[in-house]
Amino acid sequence: MKRSGKMKLGLSMRSLGYHVAAWRHPDAPPLGALNFESFYWAAQAAERAKFDMVFFADSLSVRGRDEPKGAAARSSWNLELEPITVISALAPLTKNIGLVATASTTYNEPFHLARKFASVDFISGGRAGWNMVTSWSDDEAKNFSQTHTKDYDFRYERGAEFIDVVNGLWDSWDDDAIERNQQSGVFYDATKVHSLNHVGKHFKVAGPLTVARTPQGRPIIVQAGESEQGREIAAASADVVYTASDEIQRAKAFYASVKGRMEKYGRPMDALKILPGLTPFVGRTLQEAQDKHDQLQELIDPLVGLGALSRKVGDLSDLPLDEPLTRIAGARMKSAGDKVMAIVKEENLTLRQLYQRFASANGSRVVIGTASQIADTMQEWYEAYAADGFNITAARLPADMESFGELVVPELQRRGVFRTEYEASTLRENLGLPSAESRYAGGEGVRSVTEILAAAGAAS
Amino acid sequence: MKRSGKMKLGLSMRSLGYHVAAWRHPDAPPLGALNFESFYWAAQAAERAKFDMVFFADSLSVRGRDEPKGAAARSSWNLELEPITVISALAPLTKNIGLVATASTTYNEPFHLARKFASVDFISGGRAGWNMVTSWSDDEAKNFSQTHTKDYDFRYERGAEFIDVVNGLWDSWDDDAIERNQQSGVFYDATKVHSLNHVGKHFKVAGPLTVARTPQGRPIIVQAGESEQGREIAAASADVVYTASDEIQRAKAFYASVKGRMEKYGRPMDALKILPGLTPFVGRTLQEAQDKHDQLQELIDPLVGLGALSRKVGDLSDLPLDEPLTRIAGARMKSAGDKVMAIVKEENLTLRQLYQRFASANGSRVVIGTASQIADTMQEWYEAYAADGFNITAARLPADMESFGELVVPELQRRGVFRTEYEASTLRENLGLPSAESRYAGGEGVRSVTEILAAAGAAS
Repeated sequence: MKRSGKMKLGLSMRSLGYHVAAWRHPDAPPLGALNFESFYWAAQAAERAKFDMVFFADSLSVRGRDEPKGAAARSSWNLELEPITVISALAPLTKNIGLVATASTTYNEPFHLARKFASVDFISGGRAGWNMVTSWSDDEAKNFSQTHTKDYDFRYERGAEFIDVVNGLWDSWDDDAIERNQQSGVFYDATKVHSLNHVGKHFKVAGPLTVARTPQGRPIIVQAGESEQGREIAAASADVVYTASDEIQRAKAFYASVKGRMEKYGRPMDALKILPGLTPFVGRTLQEAQDKHDQLQELIDPLVGLGALSRKVGDLSDLPLDEPLTRIAGARMKSAGDKVMAIVKEENLTLRQLYQRFASANGSRVVIGTASQIADTMQEWYEAYAADGFNITAARLPADMESFGELVVPELQRRGVFRTEYEASTLRENLGLPSAESRYAGGEGVRSVTEILAAAGAAS
Repeated sequence: MKRSGKMKLGLSMRSLGYHVAAWRHPDAPPLGALNFESFYWAAQAAERAKFDMVFFADSLSVRGRDEPKGAAARSSWNLELEPITVISALAPLTKNIGLVATASTTYNEPFHLARKFASVDFISGGRAGWNMVTSWSDDEAKNFSQTHTKDYDFRYERGAEFIDVVNGLWDSWDDDAIERNQQSGVFYDATKVHSLNHVGKHFKVAGPLTVARTPQGRPIIVQAGESEQGREIAAASADVVYTASDEIQRAKAFYASVKGRMEKYGRPMDALKILPGLTPFVGRTLQEAQDKHDQLQELIDPLVGLGALSRKVGDLSDLPLDEPLTRIAGARMKSAGDKVMAIVKEENLTLRQLYQRFASANGSRVVIGTASQIADTMQEWYEAYAADGFNITAARLPADMESFGELVVPELQRRGVFRTEYEASTLRENLGLPSAESRYAGGEGVRSVTEILAAAGAAS
């Protein structure tokens, strides 16, 4: 039976694209990811293509400063605008597209984040989303008065309580709390404003928030957990889940695993959208697409490529780049593992070809082809319940968003698997999610993630 | 001798204006301060009038929830968009005007704030400013896992170290660190990127920032300290100081006090702009201006007025509003103090008239009159070195900004005391401030506020 409904599409933005050599392309906008204009162009192209949302990744430190031979300085990724400022700036410039920013729960205060995302929800008329992450690197810890990152369990527990507080603050004001009665002089009904009085292990937050209930009720929450705990929390509380599955069977298993956990939380399966990453290289012919891909691969600096490779197989920088590796590397390749060695042998790869595999990989599935071929893959995944749609991790911005919108989106629309017009003005409605009922409106309200995490921990 | 140069003007925005009854005016935009459009209209009007900057105040909690009789619910001030999101959203919609947001050093991390303001500086092309404040109320503490606010010295010491870290992070990348050499593959020169490695009493921050040196070098820092410590820090490090002097002699004394401290830090006096608040009610005739003022005063809700008054003279809500106070209040007025009692007697005020004085006061000088009369006052203050310009605390937004821009600004321009065109594209240049030299550029760099505070403490 053919799957009904439409797939959902997000555009993920990082620097000038997810490809490490994107900045070296002749058409790359200047200034790297400090150029707001290039994000604006990409967001406009995504909105023209009726995408559900744009999404901004983030990290809180410069990376790789101690890498040998200056590989970090050969990448544009160490310079990034802070994502909440970027989605705020995009809000009045766009009309229908969702605006999702990454923010970490590890070094933030829930009151600040709840308020910022609520503010963006007002400024955008109901299009704000928060990609909730924890910060795992020591480099990040060192920018926040710590010497090492906290362990996984601590970060996750703090993150769960953080979500609970944010959700609670977003419920502070009832939908109809603001009267604004100029005659009587009553601006709001104080009985419809609720203190949270949260007292937990990590936070004590009284509330209420200084922003009223937002156009979406609560902004969208995006998560990316692959772990058991992450899947449980997503099933109970997330609106959108990003994954990096690059293979359909693995994607189907993840999809079934997360969706299968939703019933026990009283959530219908379509209350959560699972969007694997997808990096498309589209051409009018397969050859054009392949050339696009190969051109970018050739631009990977050997130092950057060997640096990425060294984390897998050790330092091979003394070897020639363009001779078959099986002939020259021999025993030194053993640490690469059987899977990598099988590929090297089967395809008779050179060192350059091998680092191109590693340096450009972001975990997403890469699809190279015509619009029809790319749509085939997307439709196959969608109809097999491997995905509710895709998070497009474009190799180059804004160029690859523009060509995807011009070539692939019309093909998806022709097949009836993607919208031709926005259904609504809020991200929540366009994603087809249920409305966000307040905990004070009589229903069950949103689940306590802290309790879910505790129960999952006790069960495992 | 007539003072040369031009005055500087900022528009301060809070809710729908600084007057507590602004939301009850028939022309008030809906939704209070959650309506981004009304800030956009006001910012456009300010930019048309060639203002240097718009400025957003802030606080981090709902106030007055335990006030008797629901006065808080009769004000629009408990609902406010978070200011950094607002200035980010205004950035691409405006071209020349500076964008200043308040952010507290008490419950924030310097890495986050340094990055957000640096990002806004990029998005706006060099127009970002940070109004640095500390948070003093218990209500705010309770939203950030504390039960009571820290004492003044602690907050000030933390705030001083916070500024030092932020300034340090803004210097992370040299002006010419980004090479972006597509041929060689070098994106930046790693020798021109500096770790801060700050280790202080309140913060340990490694750096570098993940944003390059900004168009302004460093965003503008605004302060508002009236205390001895505040004056010393401002003299040493602030770009702009806001004050609330409502009387010219007091303003002159403050001006001389702060400016007189600058020489010992090697700063010329015009490297810091002192802008007292000014609330103008302008009309084509004095009567029209007076009517504007009186209409708004009449809209003050008695509960709001009596609430404001009760903090000065106790609860008088059982008394009739419109009979002379000297006749009905008698001994109960004693706690108001001699100054208030003198006014009550001299002007034979009723209770309503008295609360109108208190409820509408924000500490700024209120000037009611024609464009010429208001310009007279402004010019007098400017030429007497009581002010380098003014922070316009408009009673109603956007209406009072529009009428000020249409009536008063052309008069100031005619007199040659205010610009007719922007001089430059950055806030720093429009304010006539010296360029922000990096600490790594060979010069002295920016002062350590922590050291200044310690020296001031030792001296006093």
